[in-house]
Amino acid sequence: MRRRDRAGADAPADDARRGLSRRQLLLGGAVAGAGAAAAIGADAVARVATAAPAAPAELLHGDAVVPFHGAHQAAFTIPPQAHATMVALDLLPETDAEGLRRLLRILSDDASRLTQGEAALADSEPELALVPARLTATIGLGPAAVALAGAAVPTWLAPLPAFAIDALEDAWSGGDLLLEVAGDDPLTVAHAQRMLLKGTRSFARIRWVQSGFRRSHGAEAQGTTMRNLFGQVDGTVNPQPGDADFDGLVFIRDGWLAGGTSLVVRRIRMDLDTWDRLDRPGREQSVGRTLANGAPLTGTREHDEPDFAALTPIGFPVIPEFSHMRRARSDDPSQRFHRRAFNYDERPAGASVSESGMLFTAAQADPLAQFVPIQQRLSDLDLLNEWTTPIGSAVFAIPPGCEEGGFVGETLFG
Amino acid sequence: MRRRDRAGADAPADDARRGLSRRQLLLGGAVAGAGAAAAIGADAVARVATAAPAAPAELLHGDAVVPFHGAHQAAFTIPPQAHATMVALDLLPETDAEGLRRLLRILSDDASRLTQGEAALADSEPELALVPARLTATIGLGPAAVALAGAAVPTWLAPLPAFAIDALEDAWSGGDLLLEVAGDDPLTVAHAQRMLLKGTRSFARIRWVQSGFRRSHGAEAQGTTMRNLFGQVDGTVNPQPGDADFDGLVFIRDGWLAGGTSLVVRRIRMDLDTWDRLDRPGREQSVGRTLANGAPLTGTREHDEPDFAALTPIGFPVIPEFSHMRRARSDDPSQRFHRRAFNYDERPAGASVSESGMLFTAAQADPLAQFVPIQQRLSDLDLLNEWTTPIGSAVFAIPPGCEEGGFVGETLFG
Repeated sequence: MRRRDRAGADAPADDARRGLSRRQLLLGGAVAGAGAAAAIGADAVARVATAAPAAPAELLHGDAVVPFHGAHQAAFTIPPQAHATMVALDLLPETDAEGLRRLLRILSDDASRLTQGEAALADSEPELALVPARLTATIGLGPAAVALAGAAVPTWLAPLPAFAIDALEDAWSGGDLLLEVAGDDPLTVAHAQRMLLKGTRSFARIRWVQSGFRRSHGAEAQGTTMRNLFGQVDGTVNPQPGDADFDGLVFIRDGWLAGGTSLVVRRIRMDLDTWDRLDRPGREQSVGRTLANGAPLTGTREHDEPDFAALTPIGFPVIPEFSHMRRARSDDPSQRFHRRAFNYDERPAGASVSESGMLFTAAQADPLAQFVPIQQRLSDLDLLNEWTTPIGSAVFAIPPGCEEGGFVGETLFG
Repeated sequence: MRRRDRAGADAPADDARRGLSRRQLLLGGAVAGAGAAAAIGADAVARVATAAPAAPAELLHGDAVVPFHGAHQAAFTIPPQAHATMVALDLLPETDAEGLRRLLRILSDDASRLTQGEAALADSEPELALVPARLTATIGLGPAAVALAGAAVPTWLAPLPAFAIDALEDAWSGGDLLLEVAGDDPLTVAHAQRMLLKGTRSFARIRWVQSGFRRSHGAEAQGTTMRNLFGQVDGTVNPQPGDADFDGLVFIRDGWLAGGTSLVVRRIRMDLDTWDRLDRPGREQSVGRTLANGAPLTGTREHDEPDFAALTPIGFPVIPEFSHMRRARSDDPSQRFHRRAFNYDERPAGASVSESGMLFTAAQADPLAQFVPIQQRLSDLDLLNEWTTPIGSAVFAIPPGCEEGGFVGETLFG
């Protein structure tokens, strides 16, 4: 847990809790990226805890803010939040480049306020904005939006190549614009989503909405790798904001997307009913990791390096060839990306007792070079495919962040 | 925040965090009811915080447990959790009294484990059970389930009288059984819901599933009254577990339901699009409270007693006759109930940018005497009706809690 000074100065000691925390606390993990000032370490937290030991509630995570402005859009500079909603929009036929420019300005302006725990400009429920809880709002552009600017559409900004495992549904695929609202509080996310969508009404209509969740803030120790609804530790090998190779893998270096990235969004249905029929060893072999703590089957701790050469006494690989972890790993270190996933668990239909899965996202500088080869390997052979089905897919260009007074997309529409 | 010793003894000081907290912490507010031991106050928390000031994360709310066994079902002994899912089930035609008895035993057994952070007996993903986060599982019976036992069905255990404001949909109404799974962590709730529902497969099928949320745990100071998606402070006047009059209002005194209660579940659609057209004074008048802090329009603080006689300079009541707060208050102090509500915000359809509302529950000893008169007053005249529509309704009998080795429903099926 870090404490961060947003205003650049400590609050007076007698400042009210709200004033202190609203302006000064950034709870919830590492802060990285050019837009973020240096984080103050655990000593600051200790000071607060010692000064008011009977009221640890003063460190309300609802007060935690993530700076909106900076070189990158903010979601890619922090650990994932507990709740996320992704909305894909289609531009109305009458929306021209100037209209889209205006929409991006409005969205950026609203997002710059809401994420800081302030009401949007025309906020109809301003009180709901006062608990930021690490709210971020990320704006992405689909191919049609980039084309509207008259710019060359990057080769990768198109539907992914078809994979044999896909059973894509239009209802979860594509889109001209992406709005991802994420935060540690579901009421804040709901309010921000609505305020931002209200600004889009004259320019676009909703194509799809997908929501997901991870562990709630503070339920587990920070840095705990998430588990999916199969019970698996999911995402152990994953470059994180702040890692030495993160920026190089994730952020684009040139052109109007410099400082931006690409985001692949996949909706992956997980068939819990058939998964139920698989025993525990079978489940562990399908991934190559233990269910207990996610250690490779050749190790004891989650982050142990797997030994792919290790054999069982009768000569089979301990980590099977068809295991997800083996297929997901490439010998080429450039074939990596930053994954961020959220579980979904919706109202079941028919005789099923669940309709569940994962809202999976991958951020990388170049999806064709980094994501697609891995996805192809998984499509070709991955035992997990038996119980998972990609039913939605979309790719968005994520423009860089902006500074105060600017807007996301200004490098294209400025 | 309270700290509670479940095992009846303090853990050794050198106990591991997990061991300590799993067994000993009950975070998240007042503990009441006969099933709950005395709560240890803030001093214990202070001691922990002082001993390890640099690691307040040791107080992970994911470790907080609510005792399953006791005189009352546990959800009615604690402040509401952040997430709740209610599932109504219809009994299969072939399910007889003995089948239902077995189902209640299975559900109680699974619930008694899951709520304590332990895997269910046939848990297919046991690791997902390890973060209880104040998980509760509440079991309710509809009229058909009570009739199956050969018992007299209470008069109130039937659809509520029709109200003029209702636009009830079958998809959200009725049911033979209720399962409410609530907790501060959405992954835990999803897992528990699935484990419990798996046990029902041979006996019942899902009729409806409704989920909702409040502020996440630790986002706001404890005891903060919730806000709904209209932005209103919602539920200021509400008997809480631990209040002197709570048990008398909520728990039934006689017969097989002694220690139990009745639960009215209403799904109330809130039309945010038309609500948007109402200005701030109009919104405040519709409820009779300020939006800023929920104070009565005649007061300054949320819990100020309203002055219904106060008049504006031109002679109108300051708190309008048609305001929700005025209509919701009866002169008869027995016409009160314990409300517990959760917001819902679903995928919008068509041109709307929201599909939102409230999953409202009311617990009381007698719904006909306590809830219906108030609901009738609100149906007859309540300006809020302009923007809200009840679209679902159900009434369930909530049996008392059980002791170890027993099961919920044993007073009827034992």
